[in-house]
Amino acid sequence: MLQQIINEHHLGALIFWRPDELVMTLGYMPLWGLSFLMYTADDKPVLFVPELEPEDLLPSDITIQKFPWGIMSCPDPWDDLFNQMKLLLEQKKLNEHTVSFIPSIGGSAPCRMSGEQPPLPANLIEALNGISKKGWVDVSVDLLRLYSYKTASDIIQLKVTHQISAIAVQTFNANAIAGKTEAEVAAAVEYEVSKSLNLPHIHFARAWAMIQSGPNAVWGGRYNRTSGKRLENGELVMMEMGICINGYWADITRTAKIGNVTKNQNEIYDLVNDAQKLGISMMRPGVKMSAIDSAVRDKIESAGFGEYFKHALGHHVGFRYHDFGPTLSPHSDGVLEEGMLLTVEPGIYGEQIKMGVRIEDNVLITNNGCIVMSSYLDATN
Amino acid sequence: MLQQIINEHHLGALIFWRPDELVMTLGYMPLWGLSFLMYTADDKPVLFVPELEPEDLLPSDITIQKFPWGIMSCPDPWDDLFNQMKLLLEQKKLNEHTVSFIPSIGGSAPCRMSGEQPPLPANLIEALNGISKKGWVDVSVDLLRLYSYKTASDIIQLKVTHQISAIAVQTFNANAIAGKTEAEVAAAVEYEVSKSLNLPHIHFARAWAMIQSGPNAVWGGRYNRTSGKRLENGELVMMEMGICINGYWADITRTAKIGNVTKNQNEIYDLVNDAQKLGISMMRPGVKMSAIDSAVRDKIESAGFGEYFKHALGHHVGFRYHDFGPTLSPHSDGVLEEGMLLTVEPGIYGEQIKMGVRIEDNVLITNNGCIVMSSYLDATN
Repeated sequence: MLQQIINEHHLGALIFWRPDELVMTLGYMPLWGLSFLMYTADDKPVLFVPELEPEDLLPSDITIQKFPWGIMSCPDPWDDLFNQMKLLLEQKKLNEHTVSFIPSIGGSAPCRMSGEQPPLPANLIEALNGISKKGWVDVSVDLLRLYSYKTASDIIQLKVTHQISAIAVQTFNANAIAGKTEAEVAAAVEYEVSKSLNLPHIHFARAWAMIQSGPNAVWGGRYNRTSGKRLENGELVMMEMGICINGYWADITRTAKIGNVTKNQNEIYDLVNDAQKLGISMMRPGVKMSAIDSAVRDKIESAGFGEYFKHALGHHVGFRYHDFGPTLSPHSDGVLEEGMLLTVEPGIYGEQIKMGVRIEDNVLITNNGCIVMSSYLDATN
Repeated sequence: MLQQIINEHHLGALIFWRPDELVMTLGYMPLWGLSFLMYTADDKPVLFVPELEPEDLLPSDITIQKFPWGIMSCPDPWDDLFNQMKLLLEQKKLNEHTVSFIPSIGGSAPCRMSGEQPPLPANLIEALNGISKKGWVDVSVDLLRLYSYKTASDIIQLKVTHQISAIAVQTFNANAIAGKTEAEVAAAVEYEVSKSLNLPHIHFARAWAMIQSGPNAVWGGRYNRTSGKRLENGELVMMEMGICINGYWADITRTAKIGNVTKNQNEIYDLVNDAQKLGISMMRPGVKMSAIDSAVRDKIESAGFGEYFKHALGHHVGFRYHDFGPTLSPHSDGVLEEGMLLTVEPGIYGEQIKMGVRIEDNVLITNNGCIVMSSYLDATN
């Protein structure tokens, strides 16, 4: 698929540097977020990594070149890197061809240390443009399309992510009890996910659980945010969760009932649940994404709650918390294809109705239908 | 200080959009990471925020303008934003002046949801350049200098951050026992920090604790990373931690001893500890940063461990995990001034010596000396 893009646009090389791109192309999650994959037209890619990058998690079937980032005695490691890249292109006699890459980090996944942006140089885009004599050409449309398709090996990893998500959901259900604070519930969920590093073959595990209960959940359609508020009997409590295992993401939402809830709360919960099941039942190759959104939206509208469901029904997921690609939404021009993984997440929230409910699963399109990757999560309810 | 930069360079406006810049200028930590402060030459700044941004945490003493990001029916919210910014400059008759901002997100702090980059548009820099007829001028040197100085109100917030860090260190010490895994220790620390949302006036709390024990700690000078390895008797275990409370950061490292350690381990621990105390004792206004690095490095070198201390002694901290500015390092041209907050973090790590030790505190320069912001952490040891 990369070679196809290269051939079609007569490129010398594709360059991938965003953490999610490295997961997508190599299954490799960078630690420092300063690794660069140069996928050259001769099909002999080279991965440039900083000296300080751990060696045990580097992909084994690719040429590695190091650059001196992190070495105190080196005043400009970036110059060294960009020169190495330029030289490689020259040696391969590809420097009369344009190169391409996505020139924006917007929306992408963090590297392992998500607490700070990788310290990429301010002139990064300009410097990458200068690697070839012919500069950069924009093939973003083709590159961004890659996010919409999950390969067999991606799916194996994504199943692991969803298995850990199941532990998270179980922890949420066990902790969604009156008297606990939202912060305690979120922290308990994240604790269990972080602990999954104890399992074999897991080298990165982190969850971002956001808990909104009772009146806080009315904002669930605008933002997700945990507070120190205590959960009370009679409330609905929502957990929105982004979770990353080894670089592969899931995006799950559950709504729990604390003690006795009213008939009204139950009805809205059931409506969201039924609407979600309806959406999932339509997920198969060839179906228009807008049609699924419409069916779900119609159901919620005819029950009289249309004005409380204001966001899209779903989005691609897996290499990021929100993968690029056409969404399940009213004006989407997307059509479902095998290998796509999308969230299905209707929600009803409002100050007037004094509650918020969302239920979200990740659905993989197969050759003739779909698999709810998070389906076994329900077994823990 | 912002007005001074504006006057000096005859600017129409300064634009701040990176999360740490908004904390630094307004004490405001954005949720979506899509807020833009336009600090105009007439000293009447305007904060542009997306429609979906929560209202309760917006700064109260500034004009707010919204733009329709997150509204499903709006095809291009960014055009709307950039037009609003352009119009504001026109109305204030400042559009014949250049504007300035830092055109790179490299190294900056995440917004509340650190699991993904804010979905900023690919043409962000170009679009911001287009706000004024006269375009952009580079005043990065002046803007980056802002990171080196903490005001009285920053210091109040940073004390809160360090108070929560004390809880984290206490939790680390209590959990650094044989039989626990690195992941369990890290998760326990992060759990306690996340729970601090229960305290008054804390609206954001997250820690990134990285635990490396025994043989894993030999890599502590190259990277920090938690694994599923169990802590064993006779090991040294290191916790590196970035922690963010309400947008204000601390960067703390502690090394603990598991059970009985050897004389050799104790000696290296004491050497690092003494070297750090030596460095801290020199921290006061007017001292060259390189001199402090030299004194500490000399001490470690004369004990025969120079080759195992390969990184800089310290860096600015507070608005980020690593703030911009001159470092405590051999070739630094920085001089300490009142209001600076720096880490002091000597470390000794090596495969040959089979261990890793680092001790790191955050030190605030006062008018005649320094305060170890994390000093009370030692009380918990």
